[in-house]
Amino acid sequence: MGQAPEWRFDPLTGRRVLISPDRGDRPIHPTGTCPFCEGREAETPPEVLAFRAPGSAPNGAGWRVRVVPNRYAAVRLDLGEPGALVTGAAPTPVANAPGSPRLREAGIGVAEVFLESPRHETAFRNLSQSQAADAVRAWRDRLRHWHDDGRLGFALVFKNEGPAAGASVDHCHSQLIGVPVVPPAVAEEVRLAGPGCVFCGWVAAELGGPLHVAESDGFAVLCPPAPRFPGETWVLPKAHGPAFETLSEPEAGELAAVTRDLLARVHRAFGGPDFNLIVKSTPFRHAGPYHWRIEILPRTTTTAGWEWGTGLLINTVFPERAAELLRAAT
Amino acid sequence: MGQAPEWRFDPLTGRRVLISPDRGDRPIHPTGTCPFCEGREAETPPEVLAFRAPGSAPNGAGWRVRVVPNRYAAVRLDLGEPGALVTGAAPTPVANAPGSPRLREAGIGVAEVFLESPRHETAFRNLSQSQAADAVRAWRDRLRHWHDDGRLGFALVFKNEGPAAGASVDHCHSQLIGVPVVPPAVAEEVRLAGPGCVFCGWVAAELGGPLHVAESDGFAVLCPPAPRFPGETWVLPKAHGPAFETLSEPEAGELAAVTRDLLARVHRAFGGPDFNLIVKSTPFRHAGPYHWRIEILPRTTTTAGWEWGTGLLINTVFPERAAELLRAAT
Repeated sequence: MGQAPEWRFDPLTGRRVLISPDRGDRPIHPTGTCPFCEGREAETPPEVLAFRAPGSAPNGAGWRVRVVPNRYAAVRLDLGEPGALVTGAAPTPVANAPGSPRLREAGIGVAEVFLESPRHETAFRNLSQSQAADAVRAWRDRLRHWHDDGRLGFALVFKNEGPAAGASVDHCHSQLIGVPVVPPAVAEEVRLAGPGCVFCGWVAAELGGPLHVAESDGFAVLCPPAPRFPGETWVLPKAHGPAFETLSEPEAGELAAVTRDLLARVHRAFGGPDFNLIVKSTPFRHAGPYHWRIEILPRTTTTAGWEWGTGLLINTVFPERAAELLRAAT
Repeated sequence: MGQAPEWRFDPLTGRRVLISPDRGDRPIHPTGTCPFCEGREAETPPEVLAFRAPGSAPNGAGWRVRVVPNRYAAVRLDLGEPGALVTGAAPTPVANAPGSPRLREAGIGVAEVFLESPRHETAFRNLSQSQAADAVRAWRDRLRHWHDDGRLGFALVFKNEGPAAGASVDHCHSQLIGVPVVPPAVAEEVRLAGPGCVFCGWVAAELGGPLHVAESDGFAVLCPPAPRFPGETWVLPKAHGPAFETLSEPEAGELAAVTRDLLARVHRAFGGPDFNLIVKSTPFRHAGPYHWRIEILPRTTTTAGWEWGTGLLINTVFPERAAELLRAAT
């Protein structure tokens, strides 16, 4: 392993960035040597969760979904006492930088990978319904695990599908990264969600309206009011629910079906784009209102100088038009 | 032209996004048909500024640097009265969206393109010193123009070099986008810069230190405390100066030389990456402290689900290591 990951703080811009040299060591695997396929379990760290055929041994064949620590983790749990950071302790100056405003904090956290199919499948929309439902259950179970663990403040489950979305392995997989603190953008969103739940009212107002894409008994599929990319779409529970880790067994199956259908629509309507899937759920210690959701971000456009210089994104497709295209893409 | 550009606001997340369908119509030009080369002036809108050989006619051959309105502009000046927006008037609800929190505002502003060479050169570092200095002078002159115009609140000059940086034309060019309001991230940075000038102290503290890359009489080249990408580097004037548009003639030449040298170092040290160049300058109506700078962002890594879900970036190279590599890349 290389130099341990660190948060660096920039008092000039208010920015914080995680510097993690180990992430740069991720290899590109030639075709036929996929480390995520069944039979290659020795190429990943020992599993922390697996849904397996009865009687099959841990870290061997026979699994449907398998969760392992990320070998090229952006954060590590062995770098200090996360409890101290949750309190918001001030970062410490970088050693040997007298007079410099450089500040750092250890890159504490967990990083896990969800292997979503024993066979070499590359698209979530092509997984079977039961395979996709197992992936959703695994996301829920690991979020619940880290919620109950008590050392972390926030965790994000996400999927990068395709190189334009940041994937370095094409085997269908997703990730969890958990950190002691709540990211500022997440804290701001949580603040805006109260004092009632703004999402509950929004979902009710938009169902059947110009941003409506699809729905099931329990879930609404909507384009957001200010989409960041052409075809950005959200899946939200119709009923109030802050934490993804409280998902029931039937809800997991229904959510998998709705998400597969949405991804097939995005594939048809927007030219088979690479995409990010993001599970937005409440911070672990937050008791106020929030409403979990899944975000799909098709990556058909590139951020450029304007976006990095101003923080303001430019999208080329209005959300009403994107919803119209997605509704028609059955 | 398609539907007029609009800002859309998302009260759920606090996000604002510019939706601009015309941006999606940008064509890809086959080799040999570059619309930015000398002799093809009819393929761009009439010039708003050009540095030309004595006696050469506007919009014909004979120019060294030429500035034209962007044919695929993200914002337009004919959509309303920008003066009203500078005051921070509340956005209006989207028509036909009763009960919906969708809010919009006209996409007012200007978008210009700087053609930085009459010949088909694709890399700023390969421009001659006088050609690069002319580009820097053009950036200054157009920022000064829009400052004096009085209708805009902020303008950004930036360059996207290479497809990974968002360029759709490979001929060496840069852009200016100006808008009536100050982007929130820029307003926050301006707020942090006071009440003294934090940049003045930082430049003095880092010169010759672990983040030092290079310097000239008037300029410091430093890696920032929390770089967003491997090799991110800033060029700052050593003396306090909030506004890029006040650059003197000798300073323009010196800045061009320092920037060309830095881009050559980035090219050698980081594998010839595509990059964004950003000119950060004070908002037009801001009287408080700020310190202009040029940022170079090598685009060797891709933002993925974690970044879009949390707003937190992951970089793989510490700034001290990047500065070491850049110092050695002479």
